[in-house]
Amino acid sequence: MVSMTDLVTFGETMLRLSPPRGERLETTGDLAVQAGGAESNVAVGAARLGADARWLSKLPDSPLGRRIVNELRSHGVRSGVAWTEPDESRLGTYYLEHGGAPRGTNVIYDRTDAAITTVSPDELPTDAVEEAEWFHTTGITPALSAAAAETTTALLKTAGDAGTTRSFDLNYRSKLWDPQTARAAYEDLFEHVDTLFVPRRDAREVLDREGDAVEIAHGLATEFAFDTVVVTRGLEGAVALHDGSMYEQDVFEADTFDAIGTGDAFVAGFIAERLRGGDLPAALQWGSATAALKRTTDGDLAVTTRAEVQSVIDGEGGINR
Amino acid sequence: MVSMTDLVTFGETMLRLSPPRGERLETTGDLAVQAGGAESNVAVGAARLGADARWLSKLPDSPLGRRIVNELRSHGVRSGVAWTEPDESRLGTYYLEHGGAPRGTNVIYDRTDAAITTVSPDELPTDAVEEAEWFHTTGITPALSAAAAETTTALLKTAGDAGTTRSFDLNYRSKLWDPQTARAAYEDLFEHVDTLFVPRRDAREVLDREGDAVEIAHGLATEFAFDTVVVTRGLEGAVALHDGSMYEQDVFEADTFDAIGTGDAFVAGFIAERLRGGDLPAALQWGSATAALKRTTDGDLAVTTRAEVQSVIDGEGGINR
Amino acid sequence: MVSMTDLVTFGETMLRLSPPRGERLETTGDLAVQAGGAESNVAVGAARLGADARWLSKLPDSPLGRRIVNELRSHGVRSGVAWTEPDESRLGTYYLEHGGAPRGTNVIYDRTDAAITTVSPDELPTDAVEEAEWFHTTGITPALSAAAAETTTALLKTAGDAGTTRSFDLNYRSKLWDPQTARAAYEDLFEHVDTLFVPRRDAREVLDREGDAVEIAHGLATEFAFDTVVVTRGLEGAVALHDGSMYEQDVFEADTFDAIGTGDAFVAGFIAERLRGGDLPAALQWGSATAALKRTTDGDLAVTTRAEVQSVIDGEGGINR
Amino acid sequence: MVSMTDLVTFGETMLRLSPPRGERLETTGDLAVQAGGAESNVAVGAARLGADARWLSKLPDSPLGRRIVNELRSHGVRSGVAWTEPDESRLGTYYLEHGGAPRGTNVIYDRTDAAITTVSPDELPTDAVEEAEWFHTTGITPALSAAAAETTTALLKTAGDAGTTRSFDLNYRSKLWDPQTARAAYEDLFEHVDTLFVPRRDAREVLDREGDAVEIAHGLATEFAFDTVVVTRGLEGAVALHDGSMYEQDVFEADTFDAIGTGDAFVAGFIAERLRGGDLPAALQWGSATAALKRTTDGDLAVTTRAEVQSVIDGEGGINR
Amino acid sequence: MVSMTDLVTFGETMLRLSPPRGERLETTGDLAVQAGGAESNVAVGAARLGADARWLSKLPDSPLGRRIVNELRSHGVRSGVAWTEPDESRLGTYYLEHGGAPRGTNVIYDRTDAAITTVSPDELPTDAVEEAEWFHTTGITPALSAAAAETTTALLKTAGDAGTTRSFDLNYRSKLWDPQTARAAYEDLFEHVDTLFVPRRDAREVLDREGDAVEIAHGLATEFAFDTVVVTRGLEGAVALHDGSMYEQDVFEADTFDAIGTGDAFVAGFIAERLRGGDLPAALQWGSATAALKRTTDGDLAVTTRAEVQSVIDGEGGINR
Amino acid sequence: MVSMTDLVTFGETMLRLSPPRGERLETTGDLAVQAGGAESNVAVGAARLGADARWLSKLPDSPLGRRIVNELRSHGVRSGVAWTEPDESRLGTYYLEHGGAPRGTNVIYDRTDAAITTVSPDELPTDAVEEAEWFHTTGITPALSAAAAETTTALLKTAGDAGTTRSFDLNYRSKLWDPQTARAAYEDLFEHVDTLFVPRRDAREVLDREGDAVEIAHGLATEFAFDTVVVTRGLEGAVALHDGSMYEQDVFEADTFDAIGTGDAFVAGFIAERLRGGDLPAALQWGSATAALKRTTDGDLAVTTRAEVQSVIDGEGGINR
Repeated sequence: MVSMTDLVTFGETMLRLSPPRGERLETTGDLAVQAGGAESNVAVGAARLGADARWLSKLPDSPLGRRIVNELRSHGVRSGVAWTEPDESRLGTYYLEHGGAPRGTNVIYDRTDAAITTVSPDELPTDAVEEAEWFHTTGITPALSAAAAETTTALLKTAGDAGTTRSFDLNYRSKLWDPQTARAAYEDLFEHVDTLFVPRRDAREVLDREGDAVEIAHGLATEFAFDTVVVTRGLEGAVALHDGSMYEQDVFEADTFDAIGTGDAFVAGFIAERLRGGDLPAALQWGSATAALKRTTDGDLAVTTRAEVQSVIDGEGGINR
Repeated sequence: MVSMTDLVTFGETMLRLSPPRGERLETTGDLAVQAGGAESNVAVGAARLGADARWLSKLPDSPLGRRIVNELRSHGVRSGVAWTEPDESRLGTYYLEHGGAPRGTNVIYDRTDAAITTVSPDELPTDAVEEAEWFHTTGITPALSAAAAETTTALLKTAGDAGTTRSFDLNYRSKLWDPQTARAAYEDLFEHVDTLFVPRRDAREVLDREGDAVEIAHGLATEFAFDTVVVTRGLEGAVALHDGSMYEQDVFEADTFDAIGTGDAFVAGFIAERLRGGDLPAALQWGSATAALKRTTDGDLAVTTRAEVQSVIDGEGGINR
Repeated sequence: MVSMTDLVTFGETMLRLSPPRGERLETTGDLAVQAGGAESNVAVGAARLGADARWLSKLPDSPLGRRIVNELRSHGVRSGVAWTEPDESRLGTYYLEHGGAPRGTNVIYDRTDAAITTVSPDELPTDAVEEAEWFHTTGITPALSAAAAETTTALLKTAGDAGTTRSFDLNYRSKLWDPQTARAAYEDLFEHVDTLFVPRRDAREVLDREGDAVEIAHGLATEFAFDTVVVTRGLEGAVALHDGSMYEQDVFEADTFDAIGTGDAFVAGFIAERLRGGDLPAALQWGSATAALKRTTDGDLAVTTRAEVQSVIDGEGGINR
Repeated sequence: MVSMTDLVTFGETMLRLSPPRGERLETTGDLAVQAGGAESNVAVGAARLGADARWLSKLPDSPLGRRIVNELRSHGVRSGVAWTEPDESRLGTYYLEHGGAPRGTNVIYDRTDAAITTVSPDELPTDAVEEAEWFHTTGITPALSAAAAETTTALLKTAGDAGTTRSFDLNYRSKLWDPQTARAAYEDLFEHVDTLFVPRRDAREVLDREGDAVEIAHGLATEFAFDTVVVTRGLEGAVALHDGSMYEQDVFEADTFDAIGTGDAFVAGFIAERLRGGDLPAALQWGSATAALKRTTDGDLAVTTRAEVQSVIDGEGGINR
Repeated sequence: MVSMTDLVTFGETMLRLSPPRGERLETTGDLAVQAGGAESNVAVGAARLGADARWLSKLPDSPLGRRIVNELRSHGVRSGVAWTEPDESRLGTYYLEHGGAPRGTNVIYDRTDAAITTVSPDELPTDAVEEAEWFHTTGITPALSAAAAETTTALLKTAGDAGTTRSFDLNYRSKLWDPQTARAAYEDLFEHVDTLFVPRRDAREVLDREGDAVEIAHGLATEFAFDTVVVTRGLEGAVALHDGSMYEQDVFEADTFDAIGTGDAFVAGFIAERLRGGDLPAALQWGSATAALKRTTDGDLAVTTRAEVQSVIDGEGGINR
Repeated sequence: MVSMTDLVTFGETMLRLSPPRGERLETTGDLAVQAGGAESNVAVGAARLGADARWLSKLPDSPLGRRIVNELRSHGVRSGVAWTEPDESRLGTYYLEHGGAPRGTNVIYDRTDAAITTVSPDELPTDAVEEAEWFHTTGITPALSAAAAETTTALLKTAGDAGTTRSFDLNYRSKLWDPQTARAAYEDLFEHVDTLFVPRRDAREVLDREGDAVEIAHGLATEFAFDTVVVTRGLEGAVALHDGSMYEQDVFEADTFDAIGTGDAFVAGFIAERLRGGDLPAALQWGSATAALKRTTDGDLAVTTRAEVQSVIDGEGGINR
């Protein structure tokens, strides 16, 4: 059994609205509703794998805001939310239309002026960050507003001062900002980060890195003094540099039902295993297996269990009856 | 057959998102999606009853914005839309949770900073207003933003200059503004209005009128020189003052499946009949019958036909086979 | 336990296609599919109440035709079907849009040239009629085509010759023929009928009868020498004339979910009880209770049980746990 | 803000499986899945109204068992569950078919040998009972098995020893046991109960009480030394005897969407208000309003808020926009 | 921006009724309803890609007939419909059961005696054909009835006389006629056709052509003096002969959600690009990309946009956020 | 046409409850309901392919029990059921969560103490077994209870005495018993079996056989004197030993929508063809084709037709219109 408050994450969670497979946003009559947000996705994934997890954010105290907290809570995640009056702020939403080659999956953000854009550290239970073993946030949050960016920095500093491990997933979103602005913001934050998660493509296109994943990891670790750099390469798997050693992890092949949240599931599996004392290779394996399981289920969240992750690592499958 | 462009309306149309009956926004997994907005509701209702109708507004050129136009178009309403780039503005949405006594029906607006809040007359096909026989808008639009309020005034003036009949439905929304602010805004617009639709309750609570519906109608007509004042009284029916004569209309009793849009359906039926040359009593009857039919069907829109409205007026019903 | 083949019915069964409550045929994206037809409704209702029932008809040997037989069979009704090649005939369909006052329920028949319109007695297992205790058909069948009318006459004659009790439900359908044509056809058949079911309204408007239900029953029994005449009066209940005695039955009040099939359920309950040896008052009571139960459930069919009917007669209800 | 662990409840929670309205268990293709159980219903209702609530029970550690805990947790209820291996026990289920007059609502229990039937006090966190302000259970639990009955007694004693207020809802279930057996079991427990909730009908038919609700309350309070006796009378409202005074509460009329859980919602509202320091009349009012709100929504649970309950008490309603 | 009435098509549009994936027509309880017909599919596809498109046909003026017009109108297609009284004709329907290897997709036509079978040119707005740049119809229409065949010929002649480009998609349907009859009918029409679309298989099996697609194109162009012949070869792509030059186009690989309408989408993309002035290779590319997009979405219609087609041509995809 | 009662099967049929694709039992709000059980799956499959089939079992006379019989009956299977009072026994259920690599499909049985566990031969119409040409049961039944095992033995003996062909499908279920116990039970039954169906994997892991499928077949036939041994090898197809000859059959490749019931469909196709007089190779081909068709449709049952199976054997497919 793990100790209290292993993991705290901070970021925006939105209402995810998606039409049935094969239907289009322009014509559908029906939207499935779920909670989705990179940082709460990580909290849920890690909580389901045994971590005591908490998520910090800001929400309107409306049925819509409460359903976010309730859905996370159903998976065991406690929330530390700065509530506004129901009509004082809005809940960010995003519309997700599943694609199918050659049609891309389309995400329409409707998150402008969401509650979190006015967040400040003093509204949040920052002591939770100090008492946690691990703090995680992503590159989406600083893109949302100046206040969100400042709060991100403040929480990372708080974590650093308290000795809490700090991880950061780049999560570049081209619909929120351009690469140059994003790069500058990221690089300001990197000094407060212990573990960086970064897709190879973003390392190249946003951080202007060159070379293969190994070279990227070395370059970033050298320049920004990260403890750990994990570079993900889509179907080619991930590499990680930690304490001067390089580790490699294949993906587990998956029948993809819903790809959204795959990266967050990877991070969740990685952190959950690190929190349990697993070494880097084990953490990569848990990350990769959790990500594969996520792909088989609907929604942003990695609704899985320790037993299922272990079963993927052990190569089991088929019909269990 | 009626002539081209009988009716032009102007206002915001939102995406309406509603859970199944008996389910709550806080817990539902499913939202039905429809287009809803007072002024397009009127355009659709009137178009389905034979009017050539057009709706003016401003929308993002996204799948969500286009579905509004498509849904109205499916009912025969042409749109005159100022399109923005997909990411330059947002589409207003509203969440509708159907109630059941003693629980009220709950509407959560998420329309702040919607595209229409930056509308200006020069973005819109104002010649359509000049060429129309009738122009209709409501008290919701001026509540949305200064720009929307100014455009409302400008279009009413344009209509007045061109000899187009102008109607205005008070449609007070307590979630958008307070009674004092609303009253001031309404009264500035009243000089540009020929026909006023007003619920008795709003006349009392927002316009500070006293007395019964007849007294209210007389008072408003006298003070603001309306051609016609229609005061609706919920289940007690409507009264109308026109050319110094007072007319009364009962409601047609209805099994209410969805009450949203009832008032707009009334206005649609009224205007459609006026445009066909019907006198005031006929227009009230068509308004009342269209409203009753609206209550029996799902969604904001009065999806009905001339034959059905006539059938209600004639007192038919039962199983038709 | 009842004996083999108590009841044979003959008529058309269609695919019933209906949108969800509150939605309209003109706009719905979804249709529920069920089997529906007056004579098979009676067979199903009676079979569920313990009768051994068989239904005779003609269908295309397509997935659509087979699903009719399968659905009836699931309720215990055996079919005696003249099958055509899949593409040689079509299955009749009907679209059902549930109304709500003041909007009527609307039925759109699409049954022209359905398979049954070319039926002839020699295609059907007429020995089943001879061996049955009871044969039932309705006034819909002769309206479908000359061949269907001739087959109706032939089967009634076959039943008469074999001593099988023959019942006939007038079931006037204004969308199929006019009252004059219908009346002539009905009256030609009446000499072959023992028990007549007739709504008071049809007795007046189609059969040109005058007076109240009792007078109608007497008049018809006298003129056409029926053993039994049952006149239904909607919410006022039914009266029956049998062997010179008059019986009266109230309706059991019901929360109506779907009114279609109520009359057929009444007939089913009546016949099922007669077949078990019940007297007229008992049969009327069973008919009325079965009809009330039908109204509470979706679809044409009286999906109920002997225990439930008994429970209605005994006045039970509430939550059973 | 209320203190930690106001309320602990103990009992079985089942998977509730119910077909769509108007469909029958015998023919439906679709079942809605929800958690339902009298004692967790009370915990959820009270938690949503501000109480810190916990529910004790026994479940298999399977996806089905976990979904019970997750659903309760989403509403803020913490669980104290004795978990068995996934295949070592089963989760109780119940099938719920909504009725409509004259057809009763039908509940089919499939709860034999459910996990809770082998529960013992030492498997449960009984310290939670000691630390709580209030402990609640119902007459369903002792009907499930000898072990469940013994655990019920033990927990009531634990609560009594610790000075925790103990309430008991008779909740007689004729499908679980007969009145005589039930009565004996109840009466053995009554000495450990402070507040008794009992429907007038059960008082008469199971407890063999005579007279009206007031007389019943007096009789029970006298005989068993209850602090408080609340007798509910269906649509006639409730009466309560407390400290020698009698209080009466009308029902709030409701459009009933789903009646299941109404009694539990009453208890939840009552306890929540008592825990906040409300007096008896206030508790009755909160109970009655919570019950009315429950009736308007789908499922066993009173998915409501303090604001909504207050709004019912204040007589508000209509469309809120 | 393109000019008014670029494209007119003529043909039958049916109600398409299809069960959910994996379910069978014989057992399903649910049918999705959509509009489908080769010629309106082309009109919708082209309209969505910027063409001003109109569709000519004949329909009953019933809710079912109107929903066809409404659905096309929602995509921007204007209709020129000869309306019959509601009960004077029927709307063709087709049942579509999606297959999965080795089970074929099954289409059951129920279109006999549909309204269009009695169509005549004088019922239709033939001036629309004269004023259009392009007229398109298919080999389905002449198979429906003698009147439909004669009207097809008449409209092609009208188009020819007016200098409107005429295209024809062979669209052989073995459930409507045999190859010999079809061939004779096609060949009578070919003299009135400028652009022929023909699948290689139909060229061989129905038109008795030999050789590969290139040889087929040459042979047909030579014999019937087509301006353009496009021969499609399923997954092998298309070839086109135009002005003596041969062009080849690969398919864009697609995750097929619904293959119905793929050929019509190809034609729509081809015509839309030709109308915008694109050359043959561009038209083939647009046809192929539109067809690929169609395959990814539910229904007959190519619900896509110019931007999406361009994105396919440019090889983009993935998750867009 | 085949003769009366070709096939009798005996075993348990459960309610199958499964969430939509991509959803998890732990979070779904919706379960599809179907009948499923190895032996009734075989009966349905064979009945749909022309055999007169009957299924023997024991059920509670509740709506749930009756729906099992009704669903089988809809496919033409007659039932010989020992009914218990509604509350005297329970219906077995199983929860099915569809997987997707690397997540396995998960089956949760909730069948303990189902009605069949108390079955005895004298409750069943054993004369049906004597009069049948073929009797089939599986290795699931003896795992359910001692009584079920004894009844299995008794029915196999009855069949043997009457000269009825007896087949047995091993169907090892690791969730019901361990390999050693299962093996002992199987081997006791083998002397009463003519045709054995066994998956290669179970032959190895449960029956402790070695070698390839051919060796396994020879070994089993030799040791237990089976007439026929069919060894299935998943995607590698099946081999059969009969009268000393070995036959091999490839699988027909299939787009798998639902793999549950594939083995039963194979058996159904095999037996149906044997009953029609087909030789071993034909039976293997029918088994394999029926299995492939089963995989394309939802549910346990092979809802197919003789024409479809023939079409698979003939290699047809595509869109049929």
